[in-house]
Amino acid sequence: MKPRASEEQLRELFESRQWHRLAEELDRAEHHDLLRFVLRLDPESRVELVRHLPIQPAARLLEQLPDHVSAQVLTDLPLEQAAELLDELPHDRQADLLARLTDQREAQLLAAMSPEDAEEAEKLVAFAPDTAGGLMITEFLSYPDTARVDEVLEDLRRHAEKYARYDVQYAYVVDRNGRLVGVLRMRDLLLAPGAAPIRDIMVEDPEFVYTWTPLRELFELARSRSFFGFPVVDDHGRLVGVVRRADIEEAAEAEAGRTLLRFFGIAGGEELRTDPLPRRLGGRSMWLAANLLLDVAAASVIALYQDVLTSFITLAVFLPIISDMGGNSGSQSLAVTIREMALGLVGERDVPFVWSRELPLGLLTGLFLAAFGFTVAWLWQGDAAVGLVFAIALFANTVWAVLVGSALPLVMLRFGVDPALAANPVLTTLTDIFGFFICLECARWLLLA
Amino acid sequence: MKPRASEEQLRELFESRQWHRLAEELDRAEHHDLLRFVLRLDPESRVELVRHLPIQPAARLLEQLPDHVSAQVLTDLPLEQAAELLDELPHDRQADLLARLTDQREAQLLAAMSPEDAEEAEKLVAFAPDTAGGLMITEFLSYPDTARVDEVLEDLRRHAEKYARYDVQYAYVVDRNGRLVGVLRMRDLLLAPGAAPIRDIMVEDPEFVYTWTPLRELFELARSRSFFGFPVVDDHGRLVGVVRRADIEEAAEAEAGRTLLRFFGIAGGEELRTDPLPRRLGGRSMWLAANLLLDVAAASVIALYQDVLTSFITLAVFLPIISDMGGNSGSQSLAVTIREMALGLVGERDVPFVWSRELPLGLLTGLFLAAFGFTVAWLWQGDAAVGLVFAIALFANTVWAVLVGSALPLVMLRFGVDPALAANPVLTTLTDIFGFFICLECARWLLLA
Repeated sequence: MKPRASEEQLRELFESRQWHRLAEELDRAEHHDLLRFVLRLDPESRVELVRHLPIQPAARLLEQLPDHVSAQVLTDLPLEQAAELLDELPHDRQADLLARLTDQREAQLLAAMSPEDAEEAEKLVAFAPDTAGGLMITEFLSYPDTARVDEVLEDLRRHAEKYARYDVQYAYVVDRNGRLVGVLRMRDLLLAPGAAPIRDIMVEDPEFVYTWTPLRELFELARSRSFFGFPVVDDHGRLVGVVRRADIEEAAEAEAGRTLLRFFGIAGGEELRTDPLPRRLGGRSMWLAANLLLDVAAASVIALYQDVLTSFITLAVFLPIISDMGGNSGSQSLAVTIREMALGLVGERDVPFVWSRELPLGLLTGLFLAAFGFTVAWLWQGDAAVGLVFAIALFANTVWAVLVGSALPLVMLRFGVDPALAANPVLTTLTDIFGFFICLECARWLLLA
Repeated sequence: MKPRASEEQLRELFESRQWHRLAEELDRAEHHDLLRFVLRLDPESRVELVRHLPIQPAARLLEQLPDHVSAQVLTDLPLEQAAELLDELPHDRQADLLARLTDQREAQLLAAMSPEDAEEAEKLVAFAPDTAGGLMITEFLSYPDTARVDEVLEDLRRHAEKYARYDVQYAYVVDRNGRLVGVLRMRDLLLAPGAAPIRDIMVEDPEFVYTWTPLRELFELARSRSFFGFPVVDDHGRLVGVVRRADIEEAAEAEAGRTLLRFFGIAGGEELRTDPLPRRLGGRSMWLAANLLLDVAAASVIALYQDVLTSFITLAVFLPIISDMGGNSGSQSLAVTIREMALGLVGERDVPFVWSRELPLGLLTGLFLAAFGFTVAWLWQGDAAVGLVFAIALFANTVWAVLVGSALPLVMLRFGVDPALAANPVLTTLTDIFGFFICLECARWLLLA
């Protein structure tokens, strides 16, 4: 095999405008080389690239780029060409991209697309992205329950070319109202006599999901069943699509990635370094501003104890440590809860269970940190009394932090707040307030007495 | 369909020792109900459960539990029964679990298992878990390149029962040395004349991976190709297994989850609330202790400026805010880099690129926070000079934080340090030191002058 083009070689082909060679190399390139090449082009060059590629390589390229990047390209392209490109994509991808455009652009594109594609895509756009309806494909095989094995084989043969683009693991069997009644496995077709009715070899009462089944349930289903996909039905039991295992796992991976980013204050859960500056700035600044206000609220506690601080200025050295350690202990518990929520192991009502497990851990961790902190502080400042204040504050704040951190995402879920985005700042504020208060109050009693 | 048993109902069946009904209900239960039920049992009860279930439901249960939990059950079970259970699992799962046992227990179990299973499992244990070798299954179909279509169909018919357990999308074609030469799609077999040699209908030069191909590359491959699986070959090109798309996506999702946990200081990247206390304590405490030492190092800067602090005690209120805000800005950039690394978009040598994108963002974010911070500090403390010191420190520390945060994981990668686990503490230390220094030094110049 010829070696694949690197990112640099792709860029050279682009700069020398060798569109056909570039199209070929893009089809063969490693996914990350392709992404690096395209994402590091400025938005105008991306549009130029897509305009000059032959239609099919251009469509395959759009399929591989992150949705928000492809949507931008579709916005910047001339309408005609954008519609032509969209026509080349599978319906589920058409819908993903259309859902990201402005309503006006979406309407324009739907009007310019081929009528059948537009109709299918429009149906799919209506479903929320992280539901079976949003993830399903509508390219699948279905046969009436009255068909025979040889009729199915004949159909497969006749439409071999069309079906080659499908993911054909199963064919579905529907009654005359389009309701799902069974599933046919390809290998059973191979082994059955031609005259047999497919009803006799189909799997009856197949597992299915509804168009509104959320990603989390799909993810669980994929974990507990080994099927390649699940048929999707509407509220009347009519077969409308198929959601594939790989798409479920991919959506779950993307969701875990977005959770990570939101956790660290990237508001939309999506940021690439190559995104436009205003988009990146907006996604970060508001979260930081909110944090600053919360920090000020927490630091107000310190302002109340200026007398203690003036007498024992050393405490100013310990306050940021108490603040940081409270945040650290709390966010360990927070992360475990967020992960267990994603795995479906804990829900809104599990605070008592979570606390029953967190309290012993918090007490032991707190004791350990207190002993360690006391030793460090004593060696460092040579003052056992200050060390004691520090140790007490560390102990109490650790226990408080694991209790707050472990329960906070569950409580936020109940009130419809996104735990990934808000839990960490709120946690830090609560542990700061408590930690500063304990430390300074202890100091007043133990040091000023 | 009968409604599925809830977690509570499963527990009742367990407590009343209705093993056969429990086995049935476990097979039908929702994945998360099953997990919640089993994980909330204490370890002894888990073993009791597995001992009393019929062998096949017990094996299916072990397949669904997290690896470290199943491994514990296999350790606590009588040897005979553990070996019998292992024999029921697919080879890739056998290997995953054996790899988590002590060497002694692993050897005992391999000796007690059926010889063929033991041989296959032992081969797989040798591969690192996040490589194609570690993820592949060894249950696949392969035929010599001299075979004809009807011979393959005959074989499929004869072994229908055995193959029913396989994931049959493709069959692979090998030469007489076992080297991979082509792939057969099931639907092509359906459509070809019986006398045709499979060589004529196979896809030649198929994409393949090596046993040592890492998860990240597999993940990229799965993103850029729509196949259901990739054949895995050894260094001689011999076909040894198949890695399925769904398994790749699942491993990537699990990896994203572990990254999240390590990021927040759960050392192994794995913690469930139901894990034993010593295990949980160990995974958290060492990371916290390391953080405490780093915090002390950072706070030493404050200790050097006791004179400034004594004169302007208000500064003690602002120091924790500067510390927290530096950490926040930095970890936004850190998270984006970690995510882009996972997607293969940035590597060790991309620090210049990353900084070219991060610097303008840092300057703008810094200006915004400085303006906002100045206003807040002025309104709060009524002192414009203190507000100015605070604003300068916020600005400088934000720029510093985004530069450090965005580059740190790349630098750590180069030195073989796990960025998820270490980057956040190191970042906080670096932003604390810089932030405290700027703030207190500015105060000395602007306030004490």
